[in-house]
Amino acid sequence: MSELALAAFAAHTDSHLITAPRGERFARFQRDFDERAYLADLDRRGLRWLPRSLPGFPRSLVAIFDAPAGLFARGQAELELLDRPAVAIVGARSCSSYGADVARMLGRELAAAGLVVVSGLARGIDGHAHRGALEAGGLTVAVLGCGIDRNYPAAHSELANRISEHGLVVSEYAPGVEPAPWRFPARNRIIAGLAQATVVVEARERSGALITADLALEEGREVFAVPGEITATLSVGSNRLLRSGATALTSAADVLETFGIEPESPPAPPDLSDPAARILARLEVEPAGADALARALELDAGDLAAALTELELAGVVSERDGFFRPLAARRMSP
Amino acid sequence: MSELALAAFAAHTDSHLITAPRGERFARFQRDFDERAYLADLDRRGLRWLPRSLPGFPRSLVAIFDAPAGLFARGQAELELLDRPAVAIVGARSCSSYGADVARMLGRELAAAGLVVVSGLARGIDGHAHRGALEAGGLTVAVLGCGIDRNYPAAHSELANRISEHGLVVSEYAPGVEPAPWRFPARNRIIAGLAQATVVVEARERSGALITADLALEEGREVFAVPGEITATLSVGSNRLLRSGATALTSAADVLETFGIEPESPPAPPDLSDPAARILARLEVEPAGADALARALELDAGDLAAALTELELAGVVSERDGFFRPLAARRMSP
Repeated sequence: MSELALAAFAAHTDSHLITAPRGERFARFQRDFDERAYLADLDRRGLRWLPRSLPGFPRSLVAIFDAPAGLFARGQAELELLDRPAVAIVGARSCSSYGADVARMLGRELAAAGLVVVSGLARGIDGHAHRGALEAGGLTVAVLGCGIDRNYPAAHSELANRISEHGLVVSEYAPGVEPAPWRFPARNRIIAGLAQATVVVEARERSGALITADLALEEGREVFAVPGEITATLSVGSNRLLRSGATALTSAADVLETFGIEPESPPAPPDLSDPAARILARLEVEPAGADALARALELDAGDLAAALTELELAGVVSERDGFFRPLAARRMSP
Repeated sequence: MSELALAAFAAHTDSHLITAPRGERFARFQRDFDERAYLADLDRRGLRWLPRSLPGFPRSLVAIFDAPAGLFARGQAELELLDRPAVAIVGARSCSSYGADVARMLGRELAAAGLVVVSGLARGIDGHAHRGALEAGGLTVAVLGCGIDRNYPAAHSELANRISEHGLVVSEYAPGVEPAPWRFPARNRIIAGLAQATVVVEARERSGALITADLALEEGREVFAVPGEITATLSVGSNRLLRSGATALTSAADVLETFGIEPESPPAPPDLSDPAARILARLEVEPAGADALARALELDAGDLAAALTELELAGVVSERDGFFRPLAARRMSP
């Protein structure tokens, strides 16, 4: 059976298929299918096809119980990239600033350490994880839930192009397949399948990221969940994961340990002015707005503004809606 | 050997003793010790003594490997209170608003369900846990790290008095013993020892609450840690606990389950006006200040203020420094 014919037939019939269906319809389709012409057309469009039966198909993905017939791919990287140590980072589409900051930090630090960062190109956590990996000059793979020729969501077309420059965009769906809600859980098994570890950053109850985590757990892969406040709906799913077998992620080093990668020692803390250091210590207790900081630390508006700018430039504090939060918890040296 | 003489001798020599020391000094002290007069003096001062060897000594506490010689107590409750199902709630002294809200909610809900809430009368998490239990009209026990006649910290004298009205203040230290840093880890073993489960709400790295949790784990008791943001120093210790054997606490019901107590179904969500409902949904994604809320939800100042007041009165949102946060994450019904 031609796996490419199967993928093309699935696209033709708008269905999800990983094994050849019985019956005359597929048999007829396969008889008429011109594989060489199809491949030539893919090639003209800068697309590649990696069938499941090829030895080069990623070992991690072929191992799952419902591996796709193959993967379509676009991007500058060799397909061998899909066989390297990889971590999936997934989570809520409408994430919080906290989730955005953490996803980006993890994408950056894990890619910098040499892991391939796999995610789903979605808004929110997925996008931030991809962006973090790109910032680090690292490699990242986006797995689509639609045809390989589409960028979904459209708002992430530019991001998909940047991912393609050094990494890969992949899909089990042939060109022309429209995005549809029912394809996303199927897409999630590929995200989990390509990675040896999956990190859930923020997840509401009963969300797609939890499906990815469940699939990873079922396949015996390592699953990390990032703890969040129990008063936040965006952490209900991820905190619940902590109760059902996921490991609490407290820093990128926790993931690297799983891969046997020695984390680099953290960069020396930036040399901060006295007001900036006091503000940072305060924000590490809890995020705050400028007014509350000025009051608590008895700083005048000018000194406060200067110190906050200093902290943002040093990359240790982020701001959103006039509200400042630390980008990492400093730990005591061991 | 008189356990009371031992406790009095420890106070006299400013030492920590759980078994009679060899040597002449204690022997002489014990020969001269007038137990009857000592007990009469305690009684005059409204204090009681419960020696370890008495059958009424709490079973949970006698079971630990270094049980105290006995407990001094003050308060209106029967000493039998110390033998009832109890949960310890401990955490950082300089806690965040998040920690304060969660400690108070847990104190309230666990006491309302009939558990005795045990803590250490300290500032921060301890105090909020005691206050929550009192708000619920429940029973709470404060364990001191100083003599039973002291209130430490002094700022919590009033709280100690309110605890005494229906509950108990206890200490292994006789009247006159001054608070000292080295006594607090010893005090923590009594907090953990009196309880069948210990909850850590917020804990910095290498903090007293982690000592309490370790003692509880060593004694095979259940330990819960409340997840917090990995960018907050106050959650470094509690999140780390999640990696080392503690169970993630996502609601009071998680603790009640351990005790085989059926949690009451949560109260029906309050009937909120449309602006209030929109604000709450927004805050459940992430805490925010009034300005950001007004902008995001396009509410004018008057409507916003009215809706925020409505949310605070309904008990679903708390405010600190102009910053609003939800008091619980609403979940989908199962």
